[in-house]
Amino acid sequence: MDQTPIQILNRIPQIAIVGVGLLGGSIGLALKNAGYQGRRLGIGRRQASLDKAVKTSCIDEPALASPQTWQFDRQTLVILATPISSFEEHLELINEHAPLDTIITDAGSTKQVVCDWVTALLKQPGRFVGAHPMAGSEKQGPEHADGDLFKSRPCIVTPFENTDSAALASVEALWQAIGMRLVRMQPHEHDLAVAAISHLPHALAVLLVLGAEAQPGALDIAAGGFRDTTRVASGDVAVWKDIFTTNRRAVIEVIDRFTHELTDLRQRLKAGDESYLIDHLSKAKTIRDAWANAPTQGRSLPAGSPQEQEE
Amino acid sequence: MDQTPIQILNRIPQIAIVGVGLLGGSIGLALKNAGYQGRRLGIGRRQASLDKAVKTSCIDEPALASPQTWQFDRQTLVILATPISSFEEHLELINEHAPLDTIITDAGSTKQVVCDWVTALLKQPGRFVGAHPMAGSEKQGPEHADGDLFKSRPCIVTPFENTDSAALASVEALWQAIGMRLVRMQPHEHDLAVAAISHLPHALAVLLVLGAEAQPGALDIAAGGFRDTTRVASGDVAVWKDIFTTNRRAVIEVIDRFTHELTDLRQRLKAGDESYLIDHLSKAKTIRDAWANAPTQGRSLPAGSPQEQEE
Repeated sequence: MDQTPIQILNRIPQIAIVGVGLLGGSIGLALKNAGYQGRRLGIGRRQASLDKAVKTSCIDEPALASPQTWQFDRQTLVILATPISSFEEHLELINEHAPLDTIITDAGSTKQVVCDWVTALLKQPGRFVGAHPMAGSEKQGPEHADGDLFKSRPCIVTPFENTDSAALASVEALWQAIGMRLVRMQPHEHDLAVAAISHLPHALAVLLVLGAEAQPGALDIAAGGFRDTTRVASGDVAVWKDIFTTNRRAVIEVIDRFTHELTDLRQRLKAGDESYLIDHLSKAKTIRDAWANAPTQGRSLPAGSPQEQEE
Repeated sequence: MDQTPIQILNRIPQIAIVGVGLLGGSIGLALKNAGYQGRRLGIGRRQASLDKAVKTSCIDEPALASPQTWQFDRQTLVILATPISSFEEHLELINEHAPLDTIITDAGSTKQVVCDWVTALLKQPGRFVGAHPMAGSEKQGPEHADGDLFKSRPCIVTPFENTDSAALASVEALWQAIGMRLVRMQPHEHDLAVAAISHLPHALAVLLVLGAEAQPGALDIAAGGFRDTTRVASGDVAVWKDIFTTNRRAVIEVIDRFTHELTDLRQRLKAGDESYLIDHLSKAKTIRDAWANAPTQGRSLPAGSPQEQEE
């Protein structure tokens, strides 16, 4: 008989969450709620955060990061839930100190660069399975952890050709066990997709805000449309600097395509091409209405939900 | 002693609302709620709409559009609340048939082109005072009219150098009487401002939706950020075709500036310029947070309000 995700996951005696902020803490809580019976180890750099994570039941046991921390005494599934800029360092430590049966996944917003690091730094890159759980919150710290954060949200998983099948099964079971909807993609395909639906919209929102500020009187009359189209520009600066930096190749690719379309629109406006306008406005409306009314959209984020900084 | 807006307005014995759709109907209802004591005449092309507008108390008296309709038997303030593409025709009829003491305003989303028509078509352009009440709804028809639609929302008024001061006072009293916050602007300045905060964001949202559709897997993982940044792309196609057509000069101007900034961002990403990223992300966040937390913003549109098609 097929096993459920939590049954598959419970074969692994320890899950190590690296970074016990809001995201890592929420993963820990969600694991507990899902019925995970192994040990939830939290690895962090600050004792205060680890203490909070224990107190709020996000983890069972805290461990201050040191080379010894990675010498696990039982089979362990490691989840990197820190900013992507620290991944290389963690991967080097895992490669040097962790047992070879260690399975690794991550929760980073870009995937090609992470997979490149994995290939370069791990003796056994097949035991790493990249993931991007598309959920987040504008809050910070394990004290705001939310065990329901991942419910019904998409999680993109990016296996390689050489990914170990047992590692893949365990990692997919992990994200499914906490309620996520799995989507498999190639790393580059993932990066282009998130660039198209999240990183480019973010860049445009930032430039729209700066442009409106530069236009006399504009912000004084801006209302609901502006509020929504620019909401993401209020996101965390450090998180987004990291995202643009690590995904710049894909972002540049979608910017180039977008600039081409914007230039075309400008020419059509100048030429008074009304059929272009009707065609593009109608197509976009049809596509968006269908997307917004699809059942997974309705489930995944109710209107007025907190902004998603992890995307 | 200074008179209140409704006191000033009550000196005018008749207000003619041209177009009794959602917008015109809501103006009529709001006038009634504000205590307007003159006659509210509704001018339209379809008897059915006029009947509905009378039934829902949006107007006192219906008038099917004909040359005679414009030969008002008392002083009248005319409000053009039809699509902009019909304004030229109305202005010609007013010029030919309406008494010279008729005052005219409009509710169109672009102003330079309207003011150009006024100058070209009216013997007395000074009695026209352009306006853009920034309020709307995704619903249609007088049966969905809402007397509170305009409460605390901005209304841009665009007097000329030669605008008649009594006409200006009456028109400003009209929009204030129904609860709007007045903002005076030059027509071209208005057009650039709405292009920056509404028309450009709309164009970008349309292209974002089309780009996401073209990127494999993208729409399947799109979530809250995408929902908000593209919400306006679900707006009415005919309304937006009109807006882009009548405001194309200003829209092209802001597209050119925007494309310049987007190209700069692309170069900085390519060059790995992190200080540019931090600087632009921080500035946009600061500006938007201040704007979103300003008291007029909080009043003007609660989160989750219906989209605004009139902007």
